[in-house]
Amino acid sequence: MSEDHRRRRLALRALLADRNADALLVTNLLNIRYLTGFTGSNAALLVVTDDTEDESRSIISTDGRYLTQVSEQVPDLRAEITRAVGTRLIELAGKDGVGKLGFESHVITVDQHRAYTEVAGEVALVRLGGLIEQLRMVKDEQEVALLRGACAAADAALSLLIENGGLRPGRTEREVGRQLEFLMLEQGADGISFETIVAAGANSAVPHHRPTEAILAHGDFVKLDFGATLRGYHSDMTRTFVLGSVADWQREVYDLVLQSQAAGRAALVPGTPVTEVDAAARDVIDAAGHGELFLHGLGHGVGLEIHEAPGIGKGGTGTLLTGAVVTVEPGVYFSGRGGVRIEDTLVVRDQGPELLTLTSKELTVV
Amino acid sequence: MSEDHRRRRLALRALLADRNADALLVTNLLNIRYLTGFTGSNAALLVVTDDTEDESRSIISTDGRYLTQVSEQVPDLRAEITRAVGTRLIELAGKDGVGKLGFESHVITVDQHRAYTEVAGEVALVRLGGLIEQLRMVKDEQEVALLRGACAAADAALSLLIENGGLRPGRTEREVGRQLEFLMLEQGADGISFETIVAAGANSAVPHHRPTEAILAHGDFVKLDFGATLRGYHSDMTRTFVLGSVADWQREVYDLVLQSQAAGRAALVPGTPVTEVDAAARDVIDAAGHGELFLHGLGHGVGLEIHEAPGIGKGGTGTLLTGAVVTVEPGVYFSGRGGVRIEDTLVVRDQGPELLTLTSKELTVV
Repeated sequence: MSEDHRRRRLALRALLADRNADALLVTNLLNIRYLTGFTGSNAALLVVTDDTEDESRSIISTDGRYLTQVSEQVPDLRAEITRAVGTRLIELAGKDGVGKLGFESHVITVDQHRAYTEVAGEVALVRLGGLIEQLRMVKDEQEVALLRGACAAADAALSLLIENGGLRPGRTEREVGRQLEFLMLEQGADGISFETIVAAGANSAVPHHRPTEAILAHGDFVKLDFGATLRGYHSDMTRTFVLGSVADWQREVYDLVLQSQAAGRAALVPGTPVTEVDAAARDVIDAAGHGELFLHGLGHGVGLEIHEAPGIGKGGTGTLLTGAVVTVEPGVYFSGRGGVRIEDTLVVRDQGPELLTLTSKELTVV
Repeated sequence: MSEDHRRRRLALRALLADRNADALLVTNLLNIRYLTGFTGSNAALLVVTDDTEDESRSIISTDGRYLTQVSEQVPDLRAEITRAVGTRLIELAGKDGVGKLGFESHVITVDQHRAYTEVAGEVALVRLGGLIEQLRMVKDEQEVALLRGACAAADAALSLLIENGGLRPGRTEREVGRQLEFLMLEQGADGISFETIVAAGANSAVPHHRPTEAILAHGDFVKLDFGATLRGYHSDMTRTFVLGSVADWQREVYDLVLQSQAAGRAALVPGTPVTEVDAAARDVIDAAGHGELFLHGLGHGVGLEIHEAPGIGKGGTGTLLTGAVVTVEPGVYFSGRGGVRIEDTLVVRDQGPELLTLTSKELTVV
């Protein structure tokens, strides 16, 4: 792992050199985890760039609670133990002769910035927000392995839920949600990605329905949108089932969403503008006359956050990069009646996308 | 509920008038929930103050996803539907003649502030961070009722865990943690307050140990630190058990922590400096010669956040206010051997503190 983190820090240093910054003060804890593996709740990281690959000028700072942890998780960087991690690293950067110091202006608050300015002295603080998030868009194989593991825990949990009759008339949405979350943890997940969505019957027409005491009934659509985390990495998957027997309108809408989802997956080609990926799936639903029932974007990046760049929607920007990990999740929602969403998590690859969520997408009657 | 929220907004308006601000732009989502009951994931709130109690100049803003939700949860305020909630409300404040507009400088990022400045025009943006957090320190009875409910779910779950033999040699820390979390949800919790701490044997000496595959054994201390949430409000409780039989050193350290905790609870008197409350509990442990093994502060406020003001520790500031809800949680940790922490959540009352976590604190052998 340590070598992966070092490689990421060197990639960041190249970006900093492009921006003519001498160093970056990293304060977003997820970015610190990405660059070092450190998982404590208070930290800052000073990444100094120069013509060498030497890292002796870079420093991680955390407080006394994490003295042991930081030496174990980040053996290859100098550690500075203090409560005031950010201001202390600015002072040290000044002593080290750093002239232009970038800071994460998308996470640093106005009050924090004021405190930084007070200690900056000769150091020029420059806004450099989102730089590491840009790197994080492209996952390395270490990250893909963790995402694959998180997706596998979710797949296994869903399979057990179905096998054990967890989806049956008479249960409440909440019961199903709790069981599914419990099963993910049992299958090796460290946690859940977000509150599990279980939406039965008419509730399935609400895109982000929260589970209630509503009771599953024969003939219902049951939509499950859920994910597991593994060492900080998130999975995201949606499947929609039918209980007991399928009505014609249900089969129709299911097939439509399935087709749309396949078109979206097929459009995951490196270099494609994200708006075109969205359109590939949306066109299928538009052609069936239901465009106005597809209420959201097609997908989003997944990694250390459940929603991260790139956003794949009508208003998205940029193109798909090789190594991006994204969701493809079209949906069609008939208000008051029911809806279907089908979602996978995939890696964008040169030879075609790699599916990480492996549960069947065939219409399943349980 | 609606009337409680209105009362909180009027209290905020009085604070704004004291600061000579015409209005406050609220962007911390927890503060918006506190002031309006709105629970969506994107919102801003403009609270305008003047000599009346009329609220027609105040506006809540959220995006189209929450159109129905905002009208249901906040029927008494005008709603503005847009994606760019913050900048839009600044524009509307300008049109309404607001001169001095406070913003939450402790949560607004440097990048957001830049965007705000671009649309501010004649409106003067002034830093007013932490104002609502100050109000939130004193809970009203509506809030205490939710905190009591959250604590009751945690009490009930722990009781069931013990009754069902959930704490027994051979189980892993993780299994116990998962079961306890599952039971809290079953007992009416909406969620868990934080990742449950289960620490057996020598692990109990690590104050914030995360559950592992470590196996519970006869003679172990088992420390459980956990909580439930109810409509956004958090409970927090720690109990330490002994498995099978108690050694003399275990009884000694348990009794010491129990005495210290009782002293801390007794010191919860309105008007007491928080440093004195901390000292009341700490003195007991100091007197036993174990002061250096009590590694953390005595407690913290609890409410919409699991940790909020006031901090009760050596470096704390201010005095206890009537209506504050705080934890009292001394601990003594023998590294490599085991430790004890006992924690309650309590309301500071004029007639003496009200205990919200009701599980017995007698030394319990399971």
